[in-house]
Amino acid sequence: MNSELSSQQVKDIGEQGLLEKLQRFCPPEIIGDDAAVLVTAPGQSLVVTTDVLVDGVHFSNVTTSPEDAGWRAAAANLSDLAAMGASPLGITVGLGLPGEVKVSWVERLYQGITECLQKYNTSIVGGDIVRSPVTTLAITAFGQVSPHQIIRRSTAVVGDAIVVTGVHGASRAGLELLLHPELGQDLNHVEKMALIRAHQRPQPRLDVLPILWKILTPDSQLPPAGMDSSDGLADAIIQISRASGVGAVLERRQISIPAAFDHWLTQEQALQYALYGGEDFELVLCLPQELASAFVQHLGQGAAIIGSITSGSTVLLHDEQKKFPDQVLSLSQGFQHFGQ
Amino acid sequence: MNSELSSQQVKDIGEQGLLEKLQRFCPPEIIGDDAAVLVTAPGQSLVVTTDVLVDGVHFSNVTTSPEDAGWRAAAANLSDLAAMGASPLGITVGLGLPGEVKVSWVERLYQGITECLQKYNTSIVGGDIVRSPVTTLAITAFGQVSPHQIIRRSTAVVGDAIVVTGVHGASRAGLELLLHPELGQDLNHVEKMALIRAHQRPQPRLDVLPILWKILTPDSQLPPAGMDSSDGLADAIIQISRASGVGAVLERRQISIPAAFDHWLTQEQALQYALYGGEDFELVLCLPQELASAFVQHLGQGAAIIGSITSGSTVLLHDEQKKFPDQVLSLSQGFQHFGQ
Repeated sequence: MNSELSSQQVKDIGEQGLLEKLQRFCPPEIIGDDAAVLVTAPGQSLVVTTDVLVDGVHFSNVTTSPEDAGWRAAAANLSDLAAMGASPLGITVGLGLPGEVKVSWVERLYQGITECLQKYNTSIVGGDIVRSPVTTLAITAFGQVSPHQIIRRSTAVVGDAIVVTGVHGASRAGLELLLHPELGQDLNHVEKMALIRAHQRPQPRLDVLPILWKILTPDSQLPPAGMDSSDGLADAIIQISRASGVGAVLERRQISIPAAFDHWLTQEQALQYALYGGEDFELVLCLPQELASAFVQHLGQGAAIIGSITSGSTVLLHDEQKKFPDQVLSLSQGFQHFGQ
Repeated sequence: MNSELSSQQVKDIGEQGLLEKLQRFCPPEIIGDDAAVLVTAPGQSLVVTTDVLVDGVHFSNVTTSPEDAGWRAAAANLSDLAAMGASPLGITVGLGLPGEVKVSWVERLYQGITECLQKYNTSIVGGDIVRSPVTTLAITAFGQVSPHQIIRRSTAVVGDAIVVTGVHGASRAGLELLLHPELGQDLNHVEKMALIRAHQRPQPRLDVLPILWKILTPDSQLPPAGMDSSDGLADAIIQISRASGVGAVLERRQISIPAAFDHWLTQEQALQYALYGGEDFELVLCLPQELASAFVQHLGQGAAIIGSITSGSTVLLHDEQKKFPDQVLSLSQGFQHFGQ
């Protein structure tokens, strides 16, 4: 009986049956109408972000359990809210499913989504489930933000310090360890698990926002420029530079990386992971030097000032020990979704 | 040169190239950050709805041009907002695309989406474009509504009149004419085009909301119960009955259908299209009889009182001329998305 249940497929119970099973993941008051109703606080602006994830392109059963795929999808969208300075109001989940997908897979996906949302005091507020030849997950997240606290990419000014809220490269390292377990021979069990966990359960940095607003009191202080590092640290800094019409210089040795990298990877490999690995979901923020120092002190745990905004138009990687020549960072080492 | 351009595929220009081409469909102020910022009016609640559409399941190049697929997707989401009593603030568009899709196809899809949005004074405020083996369109729409004007399915009361805001069956008839042009021999050109147009360019009934609020002045009047008829008129009435814990009786001859049906279809066929055809995107609203009469008079054009809410739990189709016995309507003649 149990094994029959666990092998039940989506087509066995239909859309209605699946919806009934998934209702336990949603607050009861939102079920049953054409759309969900949310209340925004007075004077707050609404922030909206959306992501589409496709089986075989953005997640895979090889490296990712359904719970982790769900967590990661939710985390990526919450990170986009954090990147704008917004706190979450809820998400909608659009799901395309082949009839052969196991019902238990879908329930485990929703389990992962809601675990992540619960940690950040938010929930699924609506969705759609349809038949599709390929499993597809479309998440839209809503948040709210005071209009004078919106974090944008375009407001960095020359002289700003560039702050990262944590280490970079951990998620990519975790993925490599999942794909090639033999690579981890120089790591102890705790180090390995921490890196894999960074990949499977990334933490959107909504927690840094209250600290940021405390540092920036009084309210007359402008919000920092910034974004999240979901597409890589190099990408984030290049995007901010472009949008703000400025340049940047990064100090090679200030870029914070997981401690385990020191005895595991070459300096070049570690830097490559940190700059281009992606999916660390830290925030990259540009603010005046003295505020940046206070902010980093309050954050701890890998937070660092890694460089500053310059009047040029390029993003330079600089070595204060002058062992390496200055290097211009480009997006070309990052990724493009399409292409041959 | 032109023919080279028109055969350009998504993979030829990559995600970044495609995004640049599609920016002209978005308001300039929303481009370039992790998320879009929208302003809700003071005291309004936020309404959110989402739909996923898959090539070959929900749209097809056989019956639908990319412009029409875009219009229909936008219209369906705006209709869900109208169904809650909400006016639109914007939509996000998540798009999964095989690399072989023509760039011009994507531009035409966005053209159709924005044509529909412009008609209702709203716009695309964000999105995501990713690679996928099957073209997939995930739209999330946001609207705002006064908390005391939220239309819900669950508030119908015994004695309410059931109002439809227009004719039913036109969209389904248009689809049949596209699939089987030979069926239309008894229709003139204008009738044929009107039915096909009802399928290709359905009109979400946001226009009826101001009329409704005018009829319901003073504000102390409760909002009507209701929803839209996107999944069919029978489905809408059954859903409202279930959610409200009531029954309903529909008068067979009061159900308004396109005039062309009278000399084209049998009564039974016409009724079948009207009750189960779907995608007419009218509103089905339950409100006190005298208000319903005033509302229908103001609407004109196919709007009608088609029955009333009863104390039972079934939805009955009744014939006042007693040529047909009472018939219980069920969802089973509707559709399920999954199944073999």
